[in-house]
Amino acid sequence: MKLHWSPRSPFVRKVMIAAHEMGLDSRFDKIRSVAMSTQPHVELMKDNPLSKIPAMVLDDGTPMFDSRVICEYLDTLHGGHTLFPASGPERFTALRRQALGDGMLDLLILWRGEREREHPSQVMIASFTARKDASLAVLEREADAIAASPFSIGHIAVGCALGYLDFRFAMHPWREDHPKIAAWHATFNARPSVKANAVVDDSQTVKQ
Amino acid sequence: MKLHWSPRSPFVRKVMIAAHEMGLDSRFDKIRSVAMSTQPHVELMKDNPLSKIPAMVLDDGTPMFDSRVICEYLDTLHGGHTLFPASGPERFTALRRQALGDGMLDLLILWRGEREREHPSQVMIASFTARKDASLAVLEREADAIAASPFSIGHIAVGCALGYLDFRFAMHPWREDHPKIAAWHATFNARPSVKANAVVDDSQTVKQ
Repeated sequence: MKLHWSPRSPFVRKVMIAAHEMGLDSRFDKIRSVAMSTQPHVELMKDNPLSKIPAMVLDDGTPMFDSRVICEYLDTLHGGHTLFPASGPERFTALRRQALGDGMLDLLILWRGEREREHPSQVMIASFTARKDASLAVLEREADAIAASPFSIGHIAVGCALGYLDFRFAMHPWREDHPKIAAWHATFNARPSVKANAVVDDSQTVKQ
Repeated sequence: MKLHWSPRSPFVRKVMIAAHEMGLDSRFDKIRSVAMSTQPHVELMKDNPLSKIPAMVLDDGTPMFDSRVICEYLDTLHGGHTLFPASGPERFTALRRQALGDGMLDLLILWRGEREREHPSQVMIASFTARKDASLAVLEREADAIAASPFSIGHIAVGCALGYLDFRFAMHPWREDHPKIAAWHATFNARPSVKANAVVDDSQTVKQ
């Protein structure tokens, strides 16, 4: 399976951690693809016209994107613990937590783009800040339930969102005011799948 | 079920069309919520900290977002034709088309925000244009397969994305160069579920 990949994309990281949990991470032919919102990537767009990573292509040529679709597909390829609960409240709790983690990543990525503009919008930055803070408050409130529930795609998405806060928003520390979810995140970071997929900023050496 | 709702949100429209197809649209208590990226919505954020619509709350207080999670949940509540195929290639084709439609909407919404800025980035607008064009080319290539496959959440997402092009990007006509997907979209627009959920721009009368 071909995977358009980058070590600094949090949505790729989500897929790689999920694949490692499933024992499938060695099945990818990884193509280094730098997807920048400012610059459409011609080769990547042959597999995903949105020019975003992760994008996967099966051996028979079937395209597969975005990270949610790829992760759910991978979950059908193995016989171990599934990351997508089959049905019921467990499934929808996991999917809602995935949507929260993905939504935090979407807003943090836009925020990063905003602060790199020549004319950043202070109104937008205030909005990003408020929504990031509200999301952290929900995670802190749910931290016990998150820690107690079987490891799922929701955990991976939330863990990657918090990891991206550390990676790109170190000027906004979050642990002190959110001790419970910080304690859970420490257990997340200790998983072999997460340690094997650390975020790497190689932007000084690898351009598009 | 409570639904944070607006007649001009394409992702809300996706949920409303899906609910109509399932015979569930009368089950919502609709709360008019104007979610603007520039201004966090305090009441909405109690149910979705990301301050985005659609956001749903079950009668027992369980929150449910985003549109993908809501639609998949609704699909478990009825005994008719399911919009999420249960498994296999049919499921992943539907989910990938949903991701394409949702991804087009994400980029069109950002594009609209960009052009309303005091200093729009021409680089971003060129990028949005290229990715919109590539997405339309994929849809044109897949139009026969889309028309031939059982109606699914993928059809709804693609139909809503094309409808949003008509609603907010009338200055970029797309039908002439994409006749096959345009023909399919005409059949989509003729469905009772779609006609019952026309986009309405009430921004002159309803603010936040």
